[in-house]
Amino acid sequence: MSIEFWKPEEIEAESFRRISEELGDRLFPAGVDLVVKRVIHTTADFSFADTLLFSEGVVEQGKEAIRQGACIVTDTNMALAGINKARLAGFGATARCFMAEADVAAEAKERGVTRATVSMERAAALSAERPLILAIGNAPTALVKIKELMDAGQLKPALLIAAPVGFVNVVEAKELFVGSSTPHIIARGRKGGSTVAAAIVNAILYQI
Amino acid sequence: MSIEFWKPEEIEAESFRRISEELGDRLFPAGVDLVVKRVIHTTADFSFADTLLFSEGVVEQGKEAIRQGACIVTDTNMALAGINKARLAGFGATARCFMAEADVAAEAKERGVTRATVSMERAAALSAERPLILAIGNAPTALVKIKELMDAGQLKPALLIAAPVGFVNVVEAKELFVGSSTPHIIARGRKGGSTVAAAIVNAILYQI
Repeated sequence: MSIEFWKPEEIEAESFRRISEELGDRLFPAGVDLVVKRVIHTTADFSFADTLLFSEGVVEQGKEAIRQGACIVTDTNMALAGINKARLAGFGATARCFMAEADVAAEAKERGVTRATVSMERAAALSAERPLILAIGNAPTALVKIKELMDAGQLKPALLIAAPVGFVNVVEAKELFVGSSTPHIIARGRKGGSTVAAAIVNAILYQI
Repeated sequence: MSIEFWKPEEIEAESFRRISEELGDRLFPAGVDLVVKRVIHTTADFSFADTLLFSEGVVEQGKEAIRQGACIVTDTNMALAGINKARLAGFGATARCFMAEADVAAEAKERGVTRATVSMERAAALSAERPLILAIGNAPTALVKIKELMDAGQLKPALLIAAPVGFVNVVEAKELFVGSSTPHIIARGRKGGSTVAAAIVNAILYQI
């Protein structure tokens, strides 16, 4: 084994070429294809080709929301760090995470709920102003709160990315949205995480 | 399937219990054990139990470096976001990432090298002052530069975490350090990433 010489700008294209080769003759709808490949590029884990679930037309709906200046709310500062905010800004779109804000922690403590719950209420309040994309990479309680707010008619995201990772309530919380009429991309099973949530956002963004 | 009720503070302990159960009778040295489990907790990917490589005594060496106020330099802002900086500060330790600094980009462009290369030179300059922990979750070129600086006697990290993810030069760059006399934790193979690098740092930190 030895290090090959690649120009930095060629490495991503070569990575995608190798991923496509390894996926072989598997077919994904246009647009979906690039989301699946970017998630594999981020994780080197081909199991996402089997576990990512896309509602019909969701990639086009996500692109349209960004074009209309969506606010992307995520539940982890790592995902926020990974989302390409400079590129979003070109469409008047933004990304936010409420989890580390001091008053969110204080309110959660006072009410005996998780910070993720309070954060999703704040996200719902934003959605009156502009399309809302929820990119959830960590907290199953965020998904439970989103379902509750959606069922109560208080939240209607333009796109829900449901990709927490973990061992307790994670699989179940993601299954809440299978078959939902809300545009969704779900990483079914235990796997997911901040890098996966950010990769899905970026994969949609880069197609505009 | 339904959502179980867990107190937020109990979820991590229950997750680790389930991970231990699933690992069965696999044995890891004390300390190493908690690093392996935290990486699995972060990824839900048990293959890390096979691919993580630890040099002898490395967890104790990492703890000692943090106790002495180490500077942790990472190559991604996502890993920086994931490292528990508040907890580090309790030991006078810090975490930094040079990748997004404007003058790093400018210097890299002028010299025709990657930003990761310039970032690692900056890290080397810091190591005169305090123990240096390198937590690499993205760029194989960072690892190549680290090897070059180490071989030239210009860099002697207290701990090297080598965990880039990807398809081009990633496996090879991580293999450069197998058998190295520098304390190291390597995620062999293609997998790794920002969340893995941050989880390894936190798993050591939480054992102090």
